[in-house]
Amino acid sequence: MLTEIATPAFLVDRTIVQRNCARMRDKARASGVVFRPHVKTHKSVEIGRLQHGGATGPITVSTLAEAEVFADDGFRDITYAVPIAPTRQKLARAAELASRIERLGVLVDSELALRALEEFDFTFDVFLKVDCGYHRAGVDPASPDSVRLARALATSERVRFQGLLTHAGHSYNARDSEEIRRIAAEESGSLTRFRALLAAEGLGEARRSIGSTPTLAVVDRFSECDEVRPGNYVFFDAFQSTIGSCTLDDVAVSVLTTVVGSYPDRGSMIVDAGALALSKDLGPSHVKPDFGYGLVCDLDLKPLPMHITALSQEHGKIAAQATVPVGTRLRILPNHSCLTAAMYDAYHVLDRGRVVDQWKPVRGW
Amino acid sequence: MLTEIATPAFLVDRTIVQRNCARMRDKARASGVVFRPHVKTHKSVEIGRLQHGGATGPITVSTLAEAEVFADDGFRDITYAVPIAPTRQKLARAAELASRIERLGVLVDSELALRALEEFDFTFDVFLKVDCGYHRAGVDPASPDSVRLARALATSERVRFQGLLTHAGHSYNARDSEEIRRIAAEESGSLTRFRALLAAEGLGEARRSIGSTPTLAVVDRFSECDEVRPGNYVFFDAFQSTIGSCTLDDVAVSVLTTVVGSYPDRGSMIVDAGALALSKDLGPSHVKPDFGYGLVCDLDLKPLPMHITALSQEHGKIAAQATVPVGTRLRILPNHSCLTAAMYDAYHVLDRGRVVDQWKPVRGW
Repeated sequence: MLTEIATPAFLVDRTIVQRNCARMRDKARASGVVFRPHVKTHKSVEIGRLQHGGATGPITVSTLAEAEVFADDGFRDITYAVPIAPTRQKLARAAELASRIERLGVLVDSELALRALEEFDFTFDVFLKVDCGYHRAGVDPASPDSVRLARALATSERVRFQGLLTHAGHSYNARDSEEIRRIAAEESGSLTRFRALLAAEGLGEARRSIGSTPTLAVVDRFSECDEVRPGNYVFFDAFQSTIGSCTLDDVAVSVLTTVVGSYPDRGSMIVDAGALALSKDLGPSHVKPDFGYGLVCDLDLKPLPMHITALSQEHGKIAAQATVPVGTRLRILPNHSCLTAAMYDAYHVLDRGRVVDQWKPVRGW
Repeated sequence: MLTEIATPAFLVDRTIVQRNCARMRDKARASGVVFRPHVKTHKSVEIGRLQHGGATGPITVSTLAEAEVFADDGFRDITYAVPIAPTRQKLARAAELASRIERLGVLVDSELALRALEEFDFTFDVFLKVDCGYHRAGVDPASPDSVRLARALATSERVRFQGLLTHAGHSYNARDSEEIRRIAAEESGSLTRFRALLAAEGLGEARRSIGSTPTLAVVDRFSECDEVRPGNYVFFDAFQSTIGSCTLDDVAVSVLTTVVGSYPDRGSMIVDAGALALSKDLGPSHVKPDFGYGLVCDLDLKPLPMHITALSQEHGKIAAQATVPVGTRLRILPNHSCLTAAMYDAYHVLDRGRVVDQWKPVRGW
């Protein structure tokens, strides 16, 4: 029961997770593309299996620590979707892991990194990371330098070229689902155009791997790609529901908290969920500047007229015209479920309001 | 060696920690007040002992999990400095802990919480939490209601009244050390005035416990108080050095990271320290709006003309006119060392640039 769990606690509604998983998986199947969900949001092997309908399957990871734990659990086809540090130590660890599963895909976006992989005593499976407009990592698909790097990669005898990979992280800057759709078209379109450039150079039909939860959630069908890598869709969060990737009912996680201070005269309260229980992600502040650090709800997840205005380490400060007494329990829909989940050593798994299991996420790097 | 540690990693310079610890401890001794440092910043029993010059001593904690681990290590006099949730479960856990050490102080700031403590089958040691201007938790020291609550507490036969406790968290909104000094005077002054009100009511000379790193760092001597509870001073961070609590040389911690993407054309780089390695604390953005998510330095901690402009889960995006190649290692002075430290399962302890130990912080609640 929610009244018996020690707070703060991270709650995962298994029914909603399964529904979110099925919807995205079905869309990938109907679209005829490879489904390689990201596990970084939950970092839990149990949810990794739910993403594939109860089985293992291709996955994407954000750390080698995730890759190793999922490999131990039977996941055999893994893409490590952060450009790999071209250090001896990192490559040795990746090679060790790669040698005990079917395939570990790694990413490069520079000649220097490619050279390090080629010089290492192991044959890596390598994607070229492409920048589709987010301008975080990846090569510019319009630049001749990028074509040259793709050629070096595709024709290398020391690595196996796996294709092109991009992530439309700028979809998180969108304000509604229409804007997300435009970015989705940009994401897949940029890879398709770059692939055509490479094909014209005789480099074949490179595979196109795309993925961001907003762009993959709003389209009815995945087109102009060969593989999709959604992650956050498993849990969703207050941010995703605000920009139109999902509805509030799709949010599968919440932080259970207790009111430890109540100050009707000041119109404020303190809960025992602070920065270490929620993370200091500002959420959809580009749409609603005063959104606060999460969405405050009652135990039935009905949103309340309350705002989390500040977080210190173990205190969450809530502004409310109508305060509730100390001891009251609340649930907070997190702004960014990936970051909030990572604050916990274990998740409380709910089925129809009852705790039925505990899942432990991978930690560290 | 710093070139051999897997990144991202949290580095703690033991020499600087010892110097920071000695300075604050000496000041408390010279001021003739009880020294009860907070352990929330580091959550490590090794550093708890450094705070007391190599021994155990009175401490302050932010979670019962910290209290339990430190009690197991021999710390016998602990104040849990977050208002306690007046739930049966929480009180039972606190009582269990209190019964196996000399003293566990808990905080209340409401009649409802006091009543819950009184009705519980254990005699708690209780502080009244006072609001000295931060307006987070605590009673208004100018309100007759607060005097009434203090009277109920001081005259209760079911709890032991321990005194008044406040935290000038609004010192973090200061822009320089002059402003911090004004807030320091407010912090101790408000408790002294409230104590006088209580004394006039025949409630004796209540002990005054104060503490925030900015207010305790900038004064030459602690006055108008009986106990101090600094925490962040052990590590300090980019925030504290910006508002004038310390110099950059006093910052004892950094995040070691590797450049995994370098884009001279875009004037940007990606490092493998993202939101989970740094935390998304905005730092001293009230002083420098574009401060970014930490201070980028070379391996010798020389600040570089680079800005961390965005963090995603495992990517830190750095803007730099002069980029450095992938594989380069950098050190980042965190904005808020308490939140950054909490992201790691272990700290790498440095002595003159060499790793000499690993310390593991307490996790969870």
